[in-house]
Amino acid sequence: MSGSLFGSIFRISTWGESHGPGIGVVIDGCPAGISVSEADIQNYLDRRKPGQSKYTTKRNESDSVEILSGVFEGKTTGTPISLIVRNQDQRPRDYGNIASLYRPGHADYPFTEKYGFRDYRGGGRSSGRETIGRVASGAVASLLLKELGIHVTAYTKSIGPFTIPEEEYRMSEVSENALYMPGNSVAEQAGAYISSLMAERDSCGGIIECVAEGLPVGLGEPVFDKLDGLLAHAVMSIGAVKGVEIGDGFAAAASRGSINNDAFYSENGAIRKQTNHAGGSLGGMSDGSRLVLRAAIKPTSSIARTQQTVNTSGENTEITVLGRHDPVIVPRAVVVVESMTALTLADLLLRNMCSKLEHVKKIYQPDPKAR
Amino acid sequence: MSGSLFGSIFRISTWGESHGPGIGVVIDGCPAGISVSEADIQNYLDRRKPGQSKYTTKRNESDSVEILSGVFEGKTTGTPISLIVRNQDQRPRDYGNIASLYRPGHADYPFTEKYGFRDYRGGGRSSGRETIGRVASGAVASLLLKELGIHVTAYTKSIGPFTIPEEEYRMSEVSENALYMPGNSVAEQAGAYISSLMAERDSCGGIIECVAEGLPVGLGEPVFDKLDGLLAHAVMSIGAVKGVEIGDGFAAAASRGSINNDAFYSENGAIRKQTNHAGGSLGGMSDGSRLVLRAAIKPTSSIARTQQTVNTSGENTEITVLGRHDPVIVPRAVVVVESMTALTLADLLLRNMCSKLEHVKKIYQPDPKAR
Amino acid sequence: MSGSLFGSIFRISTWGESHGPGIGVVIDGCPAGISVSEADIQNYLDRRKPGQSKYTTKRNESDSVEILSGVFEGKTTGTPISLIVRNQDQRPRDYGNIASLYRPGHADYPFTEKYGFRDYRGGGRSSGRETIGRVASGAVASLLLKELGIHVTAYTKSIGPFTIPEEEYRMSEVSENALYMPGNSVAEQAGAYISSLMAERDSCGGIIECVAEGLPVGLGEPVFDKLDGLLAHAVMSIGAVKGVEIGDGFAAAASRGSINNDAFYSENGAIRKQTNHAGGSLGGMSDGSRLVLRAAIKPTSSIARTQQTVNTSGENTEITVLGRHDPVIVPRAVVVVESMTALTLADLLLRNMCSKLEHVKKIYQPDPKAR
Amino acid sequence: MSGSLFGSIFRISTWGESHGPGIGVVIDGCPAGISVSEADIQNYLDRRKPGQSKYTTKRNESDSVEILSGVFEGKTTGTPISLIVRNQDQRPRDYGNIASLYRPGHADYPFTEKYGFRDYRGGGRSSGRETIGRVASGAVASLLLKELGIHVTAYTKSIGPFTIPEEEYRMSEVSENALYMPGNSVAEQAGAYISSLMAERDSCGGIIECVAEGLPVGLGEPVFDKLDGLLAHAVMSIGAVKGVEIGDGFAAAASRGSINNDAFYSENGAIRKQTNHAGGSLGGMSDGSRLVLRAAIKPTSSIARTQQTVNTSGENTEITVLGRHDPVIVPRAVVVVESMTALTLADLLLRNMCSKLEHVKKIYQPDPKAR
Repeated sequence: MSGSLFGSIFRISTWGESHGPGIGVVIDGCPAGISVSEADIQNYLDRRKPGQSKYTTKRNESDSVEILSGVFEGKTTGTPISLIVRNQDQRPRDYGNIASLYRPGHADYPFTEKYGFRDYRGGGRSSGRETIGRVASGAVASLLLKELGIHVTAYTKSIGPFTIPEEEYRMSEVSENALYMPGNSVAEQAGAYISSLMAERDSCGGIIECVAEGLPVGLGEPVFDKLDGLLAHAVMSIGAVKGVEIGDGFAAAASRGSINNDAFYSENGAIRKQTNHAGGSLGGMSDGSRLVLRAAIKPTSSIARTQQTVNTSGENTEITVLGRHDPVIVPRAVVVVESMTALTLADLLLRNMCSKLEHVKKIYQPDPKAR
Repeated sequence: MSGSLFGSIFRISTWGESHGPGIGVVIDGCPAGISVSEADIQNYLDRRKPGQSKYTTKRNESDSVEILSGVFEGKTTGTPISLIVRNQDQRPRDYGNIASLYRPGHADYPFTEKYGFRDYRGGGRSSGRETIGRVASGAVASLLLKELGIHVTAYTKSIGPFTIPEEEYRMSEVSENALYMPGNSVAEQAGAYISSLMAERDSCGGIIECVAEGLPVGLGEPVFDKLDGLLAHAVMSIGAVKGVEIGDGFAAAASRGSINNDAFYSENGAIRKQTNHAGGSLGGMSDGSRLVLRAAIKPTSSIARTQQTVNTSGENTEITVLGRHDPVIVPRAVVVVESMTALTLADLLLRNMCSKLEHVKKIYQPDPKAR
Repeated sequence: MSGSLFGSIFRISTWGESHGPGIGVVIDGCPAGISVSEADIQNYLDRRKPGQSKYTTKRNESDSVEILSGVFEGKTTGTPISLIVRNQDQRPRDYGNIASLYRPGHADYPFTEKYGFRDYRGGGRSSGRETIGRVASGAVASLLLKELGIHVTAYTKSIGPFTIPEEEYRMSEVSENALYMPGNSVAEQAGAYISSLMAERDSCGGIIECVAEGLPVGLGEPVFDKLDGLLAHAVMSIGAVKGVEIGDGFAAAASRGSINNDAFYSENGAIRKQTNHAGGSLGGMSDGSRLVLRAAIKPTSSIARTQQTVNTSGENTEITVLGRHDPVIVPRAVVVVESMTALTLADLLLRNMCSKLEHVKKIYQPDPKAR
Repeated sequence: MSGSLFGSIFRISTWGESHGPGIGVVIDGCPAGISVSEADIQNYLDRRKPGQSKYTTKRNESDSVEILSGVFEGKTTGTPISLIVRNQDQRPRDYGNIASLYRPGHADYPFTEKYGFRDYRGGGRSSGRETIGRVASGAVASLLLKELGIHVTAYTKSIGPFTIPEEEYRMSEVSENALYMPGNSVAEQAGAYISSLMAERDSCGGIIECVAEGLPVGLGEPVFDKLDGLLAHAVMSIGAVKGVEIGDGFAAAASRGSINNDAFYSENGAIRKQTNHAGGSLGGMSDGSRLVLRAAIKPTSSIARTQQTVNTSGENTEITVLGRHDPVIVPRAVVVVESMTALTLADLLLRNMCSKLEHVKKIYQPDPKAR
């Protein structure tokens, strides 16, 4: 129970260190009959690949995925789907100098205390490369969701202090700028800001927003496994995320019931809400409105400035983190947030199938083959 | 898998509706040998009981807990601990009028869609009374933590727009005002604000902060079961919580790496951090600093104003929610946030015992009784 | 994770000691809409109740069940179903003499080593009364199965050396004799044998057989969660069971492939097997034939003879187990085996709903309520 | 939740089809600090490799394992251990003729019903090659057990009707004959029997016995996760196993309490049992005696004789299973039974660490690093 499993029916088990032979994921519980190809998955992985813009590390990682099991003649078979990305362009020499130092903002210190030692090469298991397993499996979850008309999309709402209010979103521009922001002009200002930070050997964070459309009503389980709770778990488990909110989130705490409550109305037989302060979740279940969540990403911890720290012998010293690092990980994390959201929704979709006898009877028509 | 279980080793299973015979919880996996009495648990339950101040509902619920199993001669036996609180002062007549209406901000609509019908009496399973199971088991988790010198404390940071910055905290005053705020004067202003909302038949929310001290280094599991991820799940699963953050949280998204990174230093052989922007969690594991998290609570959904809604036949109509409701649930939710944090920490503490062979060997000394 | 949970979707959590306030179970994950009453559950509990015949203990336990949650207006609501049976007729004085002794054949010794001490009253958590939680939840599982035309039935195949071969079964006689054997004349001989053992202050065991009819094809998951594997877990977890087999079981080990293979044939479009050596399970999945399993029950450990043992101080001594004990627990265990089988099948039935996209699409028709 | 996970703390997730790119396993929850090499694991895999004797298939599978993650500088790191064996010598043409037929005794029919179609090449996921993941992870579990002085050993007790009673065991001969029997002369007779079956295009089964020594007292959890229950699950989940028993097993059902109860006695301060009818498990927990279990293996289903069956269109037809098959799988399954036992014990060993506060306090000494 090392913590590398996620989900209850659509369940993933990820593995791999940044400088070992590879990174991978096993998907257990994916229904049979979904069309999946390596190209489908590669599309998602390419969105998190480094070297895509001047704001991301220059490391050259092709990150090609191979399907090892669970797909036959182009379709999932219902058995575990094993996906692997072999590591390349490993330069362990870059990391030798940090073997005996604890990098501020990184897992090095608690990891060593917890396990007695650590794979110090590039963060080992705590490297951002760990997210490859999330994205590869998130791609498969997204394919399942699309079969049911559900679409999940994430984008960058803020970079450091540069943010775009919802009313100014230009969604078509998300794919036009390297920061995946719904607004090219703010993206340009944010880009200049990042460049200035790079010159100062500094880094920044930002906020990623993710929406899901087409959800049936009732996904999410009352009490602990609320839609909100599982999404919070999913998104907050991503390395640099320090906050998560649904709908109005923290702003709701300062609002009033008369404003924050979304009034219902009926339109052509369908139940709608006049507003969506709730972000698509009521009582922990999807309510038919658009699901909206946000994740706060902290500034990249690996900065080229000299920082005070201690070594593994507990002595005060300084560290200068070399290597090739992103000044901001937000753009590359967009697809990771989207993937974790898709994985959570796919799992809840399958769990909800057992919610009522009416569903069970739909599947088990009197079976003439049994006696 | 209806979603009423939480935790992996220290695991709870809650049950009960607001107007059924009672509410309860079964704790599975609590170590043997912890001193527990009904009075210990009652102390925690009394903190969430209604009727404690003019800002909470006047419902008269004594909420007395009974231990049904798992405790013998004052100590836990290692077997499941079953706790029950019988419901009292049920007035089903208050709720008859909402049987066929969907209350805005409540679970009514998605619950009915999900299960085909619902127990409409007082919210049924989606009632705030569900948190009794969380608090009763959280009390036991807190007793386990105290045995190891770990203390968890929650309090109210904000009520609507009234907030107390950290540098002005007066922790001794938390128990002196009905809102559990670390500052009596802000609490007084917030109280007046609540009174004005009550006059307007409106409600408000707020922010609860929770800290834990004395944690060993290394609690939390890399990747999905990070300390941050599990706390987010725990806290976001509470009914009215719409956002959660650790350490600087959303503020970190606007900061810089050179500021947000907490530098390490060594003091008398112990490793410390000069700041605590991370809120006590690095790489998803406790780092020896104080754990700090915050939860955003939305305004109470049950307000006495007339609101637009639809009925269970899908027709537009109006609703006036009668009954006795809290104008703000923040004060009563403080102990719920504290309980969910304690449950998460207790579970991670047990999980971490298996992290390394050195630990395993500490337990299994060569056993002369085996052959 | 004290081991008191069973199942993955239809999941039960049992609790309670033989001499505490009561015994109970929480069912998590039962679909909404199933008709359940206390009388339905009581019918099952009455079959394991002591005092039903001269071969069972004279303890007077009414074992009345109360539904505490999860049922509204006669139907399951989809939320946890909490069931409780209050203990009565507790005579702790009967057990005082065994507080410091380890009873042969009982859990006393390893329990004390594991937890540091034990609730010595009547076996505590390791008492046969623990099965009340299994049977009460098994009753609900059976109701779900019946909704789908699946029927589970258990009976006594052997008592000590008295056994009935399949070809001599008279199923209608099962309910006519106190031993639940499909043959009154063998039951009579077995009864005389039990009486002779009682006179000798001795006890015996037997074999329980359980069959399920009406199963759809494909229940059970390949690899670890095979139908066989989960049934073996379910049945072998019952206190006195020391062996379990499916179909021909141990006899298959001495057979040949040409005999043991069940040939398929087609009849009016349905696929059948000419024989059923497999006991209804192929590759770990139900094959449409009748499911057949057997459980070996050891002789009752509590016998009135004086036995050699050690005390809790590790000294050699003797023990005479007083109190009221069954000379054979097989008849009372019949409904327990049936319940564990029903619980396993109900869970696999729900798990199998997610096996293929075709099933998923049956549930999630394009939903006009979503947008 | 496709059923390819096993264990709760030491948890494995296997994947792979017989004719896909490979077979593998991810071990989640293995403690850090255990010495593991590919050679260690290969030793176990070589014991199940085909082509080792004239009684096993002539398929040439080198089955070389590669460690992909979780081991650094020769020791486990505490993070997931991913192991892969690439498939070789795949001859899909051998299997083309069975694509549209259901082989008697195989998973083909229910698999197709369950998932809508199947990977028909060599059994796909339901192939015996699936056990590679069990054995590779079982090797790691065995290394953990050995660190604590626990040794697990399996061997062949019976082949078809040829069996060796316990009092005639010659354990040193197990490694001297191709059938892994504790007695060369019976092995020779059994070998001749197998040869005669091969000539008749037939197959046989047998019984595997597994013992574990050095277990601490108290492994296994009361109620559902008894040592017996989890071992039964583990062993019965192996493809061809149709029965499992602990200690005297089915023979106990015909015994008497006065015989079957193992009397305790004290020897030099250690508690012992005079007999071991219980097979080392009392009340579902290890009792310090030798653990003894047996598994009944059915005859190999793939026989070269022509058999009656139906095709995927539901029509009556005949099938002749070509390809290279073992006339008996017992010898190759010995290491699989041993592996599943080791996995179960390793998991229970870790679970038991949290059984009492005394254990917890042993790990969490007051930590001067926390504040």
